[in-house]
Amino acid sequence: MYFVKIRESMMIAHSLKNEFFGPAQNVHGATFVVDVTFKSENLDTHNVVIDIGLAHQIVKETLKPLDYQNLDDLPVFEGHLTTTEFIAKYIYDEISVKAAGIFEGTIGISIQENPNAWAGYE
Amino acid sequence: MYFVKIRESMMIAHSLKNEFFGPAQNVHGATFVVDVTFKSENLDTHNVVIDIGLAHQIVKETLKPLDYQNLDDLPVFEGHLTTTEFIAKYIYDEISVKAAGIFEGTIGISIQENPNAWAGYE
Amino acid sequence: MYFVKIRESMMIAHSLKNEFFGPAQNVHGATFVVDVTFKSENLDTHNVVIDIGLAHQIVKETLKPLDYQNLDDLPVFEGHLTTTEFIAKYIYDEISVKAAGIFEGTIGISIQENPNAWAGYE
Amino acid sequence: MYFVKIRESMMIAHSLKNEFFGPAQNVHGATFVVDVTFKSENLDTHNVVIDIGLAHQIVKETLKPLDYQNLDDLPVFEGHLTTTEFIAKYIYDEISVKAAGIFEGTIGISIQENPNAWAGYE
Amino acid sequence: MYFVKIRESMMIAHSLKNEFFGPAQNVHGATFVVDVTFKSENLDTHNVVIDIGLAHQIVKETLKPLDYQNLDDLPVFEGHLTTTEFIAKYIYDEISVKAAGIFEGTIGISIQENPNAWAGYE
Amino acid sequence: MYFVKIRESMMIAHSLKNEFFGPAQNVHGATFVVDVTFKSENLDTHNVVIDIGLAHQIVKETLKPLDYQNLDDLPVFEGHLTTTEFIAKYIYDEISVKAAGIFEGTIGISIQENPNAWAGYE
Repeated sequence: MYFVKIRESMMIAHSLKNEFFGPAQNVHGATFVVDVTFKSENLDTHNVVIDIGLAHQIVKETLKPLDYQNLDDLPVFEGHLTTTEFIAKYIYDEISVKAAGIFEGTIGISIQENPNAWAGYE
Repeated sequence: MYFVKIRESMMIAHSLKNEFFGPAQNVHGATFVVDVTFKSENLDTHNVVIDIGLAHQIVKETLKPLDYQNLDDLPVFEGHLTTTEFIAKYIYDEISVKAAGIFEGTIGISIQENPNAWAGYE
Repeated sequence: MYFVKIRESMMIAHSLKNEFFGPAQNVHGATFVVDVTFKSENLDTHNVVIDIGLAHQIVKETLKPLDYQNLDDLPVFEGHLTTTEFIAKYIYDEISVKAAGIFEGTIGISIQENPNAWAGYE
Repeated sequence: MYFVKIRESMMIAHSLKNEFFGPAQNVHGATFVVDVTFKSENLDTHNVVIDIGLAHQIVKETLKPLDYQNLDDLPVFEGHLTTTEFIAKYIYDEISVKAAGIFEGTIGISIQENPNAWAGYE
Repeated sequence: MYFVKIRESMMIAHSLKNEFFGPAQNVHGATFVVDVTFKSENLDTHNVVIDIGLAHQIVKETLKPLDYQNLDDLPVFEGHLTTTEFIAKYIYDEISVKAAGIFEGTIGISIQENPNAWAGYE
Repeated sequence: MYFVKIRESMMIAHSLKNEFFGPAQNVHGATFVVDVTFKSENLDTHNVVIDIGLAHQIVKETLKPLDYQNLDDLPVFEGHLTTTEFIAKYIYDEISVKAAGIFEGTIGISIQENPNAWAGYE
């Protein structure tokens, strides 16, 4: 199994409106350092898993509508608790759609939200 | 010159309400990884610059009122553009007051706001 | 598969009393940077893998009896070579017991012992 | 499953002679930070996955003929596009041969080529 | 003293044609992770040291002619030993010229060339 | 001012025998990640601050008698509280002696003892 992993980041605000989340019920924010892994059993004719320039473009296009936003204000997240796990799955789904037809393998998402915490989906 | 540096972090939201800041005019957020450096010409009788437990406590007490907050809502920042530079100076001032009488040397603040950007005051 | 990963660290001394280990037969020490990954097929009703506050508490409680200790002096490790691999498995077992009833998924442990070496169990 | 991971690095030049690679068709270079993971279901009688000194030696011996080289000049790579994915597989094969008889488990290779990009094989 | 630090990277090849440099006399390469620090006694009316978007643009424009190049082929470096120290000073000079009239403070350059080595100029 | 910085690490045990240090009075350990900075106003005829191979050798020779040791057992530290600050100064002094006649500039030492704490001397 081969893989390529690329890193992009975004700076978002949000609140988690459920008493379960304690102080995170407040509007607060995070730098999300997003690692996207593309995995494939084989390399293509150029000896790559995926065109890395295209991979960066797909990831940037996926993060751009979220970057510098308060997730509480985005209709796509209305009625959802935007935990890091949930956002990882959302990014996974968006990239899967965008990469369809370009990339045949599997995708993994890891988000670092602070020096001591990560969440992800794969 | 001796130094001790400690790291704590906080997760804040804010907006920079001036067209100069482009997309950062939106309410967005950041994980601020805050490094506080205590510098001193000499060590004390315990061979330390400062009691590191006390230093951590001072830094945590300084960051706690900001952590999980939208800086736009805090009276102390009303009418100010809360850039990372400005917040670094604010933390510097707060720690200087709290450490007065305990620590005689100089203090430096560095804040990493994303993998490619830092700001600070010393 | 979703995951949450949290990081804590501890500072331990030990010796590896077998000539196989060369200079590590001496009493020496390490900062163990411990990453604990909680993996689950599904999110709970709060859109999380595990309550991250509770996860940190479980990990801290697990590391606390080892932190600032010479592992050679702890009865639980008597007669064992406390390699990083062995300690990773010990932490895995302890956290598995503590998380039983709270968390249904699988757990992974990774320990960084210096800038160029890690060991783990999952 | 237990694992041990070790890190070594090398500094290489190469060019990717296909218009697919845009500016990387030029002779350019990279610091390849190579992480090699040794995975095993069991520990040996010394409570280790592999003798870590021997593991470092195997990895160093594998990287040494590539370090400080222009990969375009090495006969072993003639006619190949030396992408990071391809090099990861090459290192995997070399280490697999060198570790045969010493280590029974599986091996994984991850190469970081810049702060935002990795490739690997496992 | 306030500061802002930004990070960009480039991937270069070169050779150091003097027997002093041992194996680095070969054409080899490096990922140069370049940190540029802008220092100033005061903040401007927007509470910043420098417009961070403009700072990134200046640094990118400075690195672009070097990225994906063999420094041995660039006329500007003809007859020079392109050590990391020398390149740091070159970047310092280029950025100083580009930032003249925009930024009044001092500049520092740090280049990480591998996990265990940095060089710089300030 | 030019600089070169190199990183080496060592794994030590020690205890801090004064109630001021709380749990650190126990024999415990640390991975000390030691960054040594060599600073100079000028480059030599090879465009370097110092021969980086020689610099690595000096640092390795300095750390070797401490690596894999319990500092409590070393005569050189008898009667001293071996805080990280104190060890940084010790390394500074040792390297200054070893580099005399080879290097004319100034030296700085930074030791990271865990993910959130550093100490140093310069």
